[in-house]
Amino acid sequence: MNVAAVLSIGTELTRGELVNTNASWLSEQLTLLGLDVRAHLTVDDDRGRVADALRQLSEQADVVVATGGLGPTTDDLTAEAAASALGVPLERDVASLDAIRRRYAERGRALSDAAAKMADLPAGAEALSNLVGTAPGFAVTLGRCRCFFLPGVPVEMKSMFREGVRRTIGSLGAAGTFQAHLRTFGLPESEVGARLADLEAAHPDVTFGYRASFPEVEVKLLVRGSESAEAARDRALALAGEARARLGEAVYGEREDSLAGVVGQGLRDARLTLALAESCTGGLVGEMLTSIPGSSDYVLLDAVTYANSAKTTVLGVSPEILRAHGAVSAETAIAMAEGARRLAGADLAVSITGIAGPGGGSDDKPVGTVWLALAREGGTVAARHHLAHDDRGRVRIHAAYLALEMVRRHALGLDPASGPCERTQRERREH
Amino acid sequence: MNVAAVLSIGTELTRGELVNTNASWLSEQLTLLGLDVRAHLTVDDDRGRVADALRQLSEQADVVVATGGLGPTTDDLTAEAAASALGVPLERDVASLDAIRRRYAERGRALSDAAAKMADLPAGAEALSNLVGTAPGFAVTLGRCRCFFLPGVPVEMKSMFREGVRRTIGSLGAAGTFQAHLRTFGLPESEVGARLADLEAAHPDVTFGYRASFPEVEVKLLVRGSESAEAARDRALALAGEARARLGEAVYGEREDSLAGVVGQGLRDARLTLALAESCTGGLVGEMLTSIPGSSDYVLLDAVTYANSAKTTVLGVSPEILRAHGAVSAETAIAMAEGARRLAGADLAVSITGIAGPGGGSDDKPVGTVWLALAREGGTVAARHHLAHDDRGRVRIHAAYLALEMVRRHALGLDPASGPCERTQRERREH
Repeated sequence: MNVAAVLSIGTELTRGELVNTNASWLSEQLTLLGLDVRAHLTVDDDRGRVADALRQLSEQADVVVATGGLGPTTDDLTAEAAASALGVPLERDVASLDAIRRRYAERGRALSDAAAKMADLPAGAEALSNLVGTAPGFAVTLGRCRCFFLPGVPVEMKSMFREGVRRTIGSLGAAGTFQAHLRTFGLPESEVGARLADLEAAHPDVTFGYRASFPEVEVKLLVRGSESAEAARDRALALAGEARARLGEAVYGEREDSLAGVVGQGLRDARLTLALAESCTGGLVGEMLTSIPGSSDYVLLDAVTYANSAKTTVLGVSPEILRAHGAVSAETAIAMAEGARRLAGADLAVSITGIAGPGGGSDDKPVGTVWLALAREGGTVAARHHLAHDDRGRVRIHAAYLALEMVRRHALGLDPASGPCERTQRERREH
Repeated sequence: MNVAAVLSIGTELTRGELVNTNASWLSEQLTLLGLDVRAHLTVDDDRGRVADALRQLSEQADVVVATGGLGPTTDDLTAEAAASALGVPLERDVASLDAIRRRYAERGRALSDAAAKMADLPAGAEALSNLVGTAPGFAVTLGRCRCFFLPGVPVEMKSMFREGVRRTIGSLGAAGTFQAHLRTFGLPESEVGARLADLEAAHPDVTFGYRASFPEVEVKLLVRGSESAEAARDRALALAGEARARLGEAVYGEREDSLAGVVGQGLRDARLTLALAESCTGGLVGEMLTSIPGSSDYVLLDAVTYANSAKTTVLGVSPEILRAHGAVSAETAIAMAEGARRLAGADLAVSITGIAGPGGGSDDKPVGTVWLALAREGGTVAARHHLAHDDRGRVRIHAAYLALEMVRRHALGLDPASGPCERTQRERREH
C-alpha cells in the first residue's frame, strides 16, 4: 500500500491559534482512497523549515499533501520553499496569473504585486485551479514522491482536493477500499464494541473503528486490499448489515446523518407536526430540529418554560401539580407535553424537565434527573432518566437526544418511553 | 528563546478519525510559557516510527511534549518507543502501579496484566501522576531535550500538563511572556485590523493576532522577551487598553468570556428578568443563555414560535398584523417581543423573526432578512438587518448574537437598536 503524509504550514498552527482540521480531513480522504497515512507534520512559516519538512516527508512517503502558505502576504513562503527543496527557480504561471487578475477584477480591484506573486510556482510545477478562492495550488514530484500544495482555507482546500487532486491520488491508492459508517445512540461505547466483538474477530483484515462523539457512538468499518472498489464496497456494506443486526434500534443512521435530521425526515414522511416544551434543555431540542432547512413545516412551537410561572401561564401546568410533585416530575412532564400539544394544535408534543446542574439537586432528585414525556392522540408516556454526567452541558445534550429519540421511536412504532439500553432509565409512566 | 515541539501519537489521528485538538491546546500553552513552538508531528501507533519521531524532534527542540499511546491496549507503545530511543529497558514503577491498582479497586475491578503494563516506564524516567484517569505519564531527557509524555485523552492531558508539567516547562521558557485577549462582536475582521493598524505599527515586537470565530473576532496581543513576567503583563494589558479605546463598544469581553455569559451576568447584576420570542433562530438564543449555570434566575421563558399560528396563540400576535405585514416585519417582531414580555411578566423581552434560508426569500425580503425587537418598560425598539451569508446556520448564529447584543446594549445604557457597525443594519423602528 502506498504511503501518504500530510504537511501543514503556518505559524498560526504551531502557536496553537487554530485547530488543524485540515490534517484530519485530508487523512480521512487519503485513507478512503486506499493510502496508508503514516504522519502529519506541521511547521511554522519559515522557508528553510518548510523545505526541510518537504525533503524529509518526500523520503518517507509516496504522496504528500501540503496546505497553507500560498497567499499574497510576506509570510506565505510555500512556493519558494518547494522550489528550494526541488532545486529549481520560481516561474510565473501565465494561466494562474490570468485567473488571479480575473478574480481581482470581479471585485473591482487592480492586480497588486503581492497578488501577482501567488502565480509564481516552482519551475515545472503543475498548477491547480482554485475555484472558490484566489491562490492557485500546484503539484510537483520530489524524488519519487508526488507532492500537492493546497490553500490553508478549509473551503478552498477541500474544493481543490475534490476537483484537482482526488482523481490523481486515487490512482496511486489501493483501489479496493471502502468504509461503511453507522451512527448509533443509546448504547455505551463498551456495549457497542462488545456486540460487534465476534464480527471483529471473524474479520481481522477489516478495521473496526469506534468513536464516541457524545452522546453518539459512531462505528466505521474500513475494508482495504479488496480486488476492486466494488468488491470492497460489497464487503463493507454486507458487514455493516451484520453490525446493524447486532446493534438493532440503536442504529439511527449512516455517514453524515444527524438524529435531528432523521427525526425531521420521519415527521415529514408521516405528515406529523410537533410541539416541544423544554425546561432544562433550554431550547436545545428546538435548536437541533430547526437547524434543518424546511423544519418550519413540522415544528410548530417550542415553549422553553424555564420558570415555573411560565410553565403555568404558557403551558397551563397547574400550580397544584408543581407544588405537589415539583417541576421535575412525571406529572409536570406530562402536563407540559399535553399543554404544548394543545396550545400548538400539534400531532405530537415532547417535554423535557430536569436538573442540569451544577446546583439544584437533592438526595431525592440528584443532578442529572430528567423526566421526558411524549403526548399523542390516545395518551401520553413519560420516562425518568438519571444522566450521571459531571457537566451541565452533557446533561443537556444527552437529555435533548433522549427527547429526539422519543419522537424517532414513536415514528418507528416502538415504545417511546423505553430504549436500547436500560442503564440510564429508571421509571416509566403513562397518562 | 527555547524551542518546543509537540508529538501526537495514534493511528486514529493519522487516519483522520479524530481532530487533533491536543496539539493546538499544548502549542498555545507552550507559547504562553515563552517557548517557540516550531513543529507538530503526528505519527501512527508504530514503535519504530514513534522512536524515530522522538529522536528527530529531540535534535531540533529543547522541549518535546508528546501525547497518546500510554493506555493498556496492545497498540499503546509510547513507553516502549521512548525506551528504545533512549537505549534503556522498561522498568515497572512501583508508585504508578499502586496508583493504577487503587483506581481499579475504586471501580471494583482487579488489576489485569494489561493494566499493570501502564506502570512500565523507561528506566530512569520521572513518573507523572494522572489525577483524573488511570495511565501515568512520564518525563525523560533525550540528548539535551526534556521530553514529557502525557495521555491522549484531552481532560487527562490538560490536568497532567497543569499539575505536573507546566511549572517545569515554565522555567525553560522566556519569563517575560504575556498574552492579552479581547473578544469583539459587531465589526468585521478587516475593520478590527484597520482600527488597530497604528498600534500594530508602533509595536513591531508585539504579535497582533486576529481570529474570526464566526460571528466574533478575537484579538490577541502577545508580548514576548520582556525582562519579567510582570513587565510583560503590564505591557500587554496597557496595549489591550489602547486597543479597547479604538474598538469601543465592540469589545464585549476577554479570554474565556462568552457573549451569552456577559449578557447573563449583566441581567443578574441589574436584577432584570428576560423573556425571548424566537422564530428563525429556533431556540438558539435561549440555548446560549441557558447553557450558563444559574440562568433560570433570569431567563423566564423562550417562546419559539415557528408557525404563524403559534405566534398568534402563544404570543398574541394578531392575525391582521401577520396578514398585513408578514411574519418577518417590524410589526410582527414588536408584537412578539411585547407578547413574550406580557406572558412571562419579564422586565425585558427580545424577539427575532427572519428568513434563515435556503428557501423562503423574496425580492422584497431576501434570505438573511431579520427583524429583532426589544420590549422594555416605556417602549419597544426594533431593527432590521440583512445578514448576507450563504448558509442557514450562519444566518441563525449571527441573528442570535444580534439578539444578545440588544440586551447587552440595553444594560449598558446604549441604544439597543444600533451597533458599532452599520454595515448589516438597514432600518430602525420604535413602538
